[in-house]
Amino acid sequence: MALLGARGSGLVLPKPVTFVTGNAKKLEEVRAILGSSIPFQSLRLDLPELQGEPEEISKEKAKLAALQVNGPVLVEDTCLCFNALKGLPGPYIKWFLQKLGHEGLYNLLMAYEDKSAYALCSFSFSTGPSVEPITFLGKTPGKIVPARGPTDFGWDAMFQPDGYDQTYAEMPKEEKNKISHRSRALALVKSHFAEAGYTFQTNSL
Amino acid sequence: MALLGARGSGLVLPKPVTFVTGNAKKLEEVRAILGSSIPFQSLRLDLPELQGEPEEISKEKAKLAALQVNGPVLVEDTCLCFNALKGLPGPYIKWFLQKLGHEGLYNLLMAYEDKSAYALCSFSFSTGPSVEPITFLGKTPGKIVPARGPTDFGWDAMFQPDGYDQTYAEMPKEEKNKISHRSRALALVKSHFAEAGYTFQTNSL
Repeated sequence: MALLGARGSGLVLPKPVTFVTGNAKKLEEVRAILGSSIPFQSLRLDLPELQGEPEEISKEKAKLAALQVNGPVLVEDTCLCFNALKGLPGPYIKWFLQKLGHEGLYNLLMAYEDKSAYALCSFSFSTGPSVEPITFLGKTPGKIVPARGPTDFGWDAMFQPDGYDQTYAEMPKEEKNKISHRSRALALVKSHFAEAGYTFQTNSL
Repeated sequence: MALLGARGSGLVLPKPVTFVTGNAKKLEEVRAILGSSIPFQSLRLDLPELQGEPEEISKEKAKLAALQVNGPVLVEDTCLCFNALKGLPGPYIKWFLQKLGHEGLYNLLMAYEDKSAYALCSFSFSTGPSVEPITFLGKTPGKIVPARGPTDFGWDAMFQPDGYDQTYAEMPKEEKNKISHRSRALALVKSHFAEAGYTFQTNSL
């Protein structure tokens, strides 16, 4: 048995954090942003996704994941919120993108001049079953535009962050990762880990 | 102890069916349509609502309800599906109506000439915990129109069923109940109960 962790002053977690995702592109971003700051492994779990407000959806998912993994978990949810639609499609963006495609999504705003939107990322972290998750929200304001750039990562091609001429999809990854909703939420996750000073118990070989 | 049920040839259920709803208007419709054909009581339960396809959402809700009630349950879900939006908002209509109102909902179709839609009702019935629910779907085709008639029952004022000049909200209740998605699904529920010949165990006074 070995203990990992710079400080060792905080809670001892029985194993590395399991980041629950089935999306390779998201995993890639999380790896790029977290680096080696938090020991984590990824796992694809079929968790039910709830309807409701983004923060609640995220917390519930973390609770279910912690039960299944029986250890510390980190879950992620992304919303794309159109201001003219009062924050919708929001947590349902996955279904809207899947069924309507980029053009159909853009068409939802046909009645409105206001194409402003925000990308919202929620990470919820629970140290284990029955432990209330903590949620970290990252938000990036921007606008919805007809798709530009590669269309292989969700709705990135139709979201242009404020202050940029490029869509998420057109930006170099490092550039996107500086300002994205996901990186902002992950910065809060990192700060939490730095402050909490968790120690990770691992089986030594 | 007394046994209720015309036939008594089928499964004996330990108590009347609990219809899970928090919506007084839906309960009123279900009472009007079912009459005394199925002994039921209503209960408001805070059940998590899942994202996904309508039938799955309904089945999962019935499973959770049966666990909580520990007896036979009937749950109901309603979708309003816009054909131009490939069936969306569908199961998320509640949130769209809540946040956008009738006008905002209508505006979602601004980009499309096709205003056709269908109302979809799912009832799922489970005889008890761990028993796979049976789902009954009722569908009524129509179109989305600017709201007409009383606006106190969901989106009824903006759904005009095919073959009618009135919206659901403008129609007399008895007329609506003849052709509505809810009545069509409930007709299947009734047939199932008639065929299954359940017997209900009740405590005699």
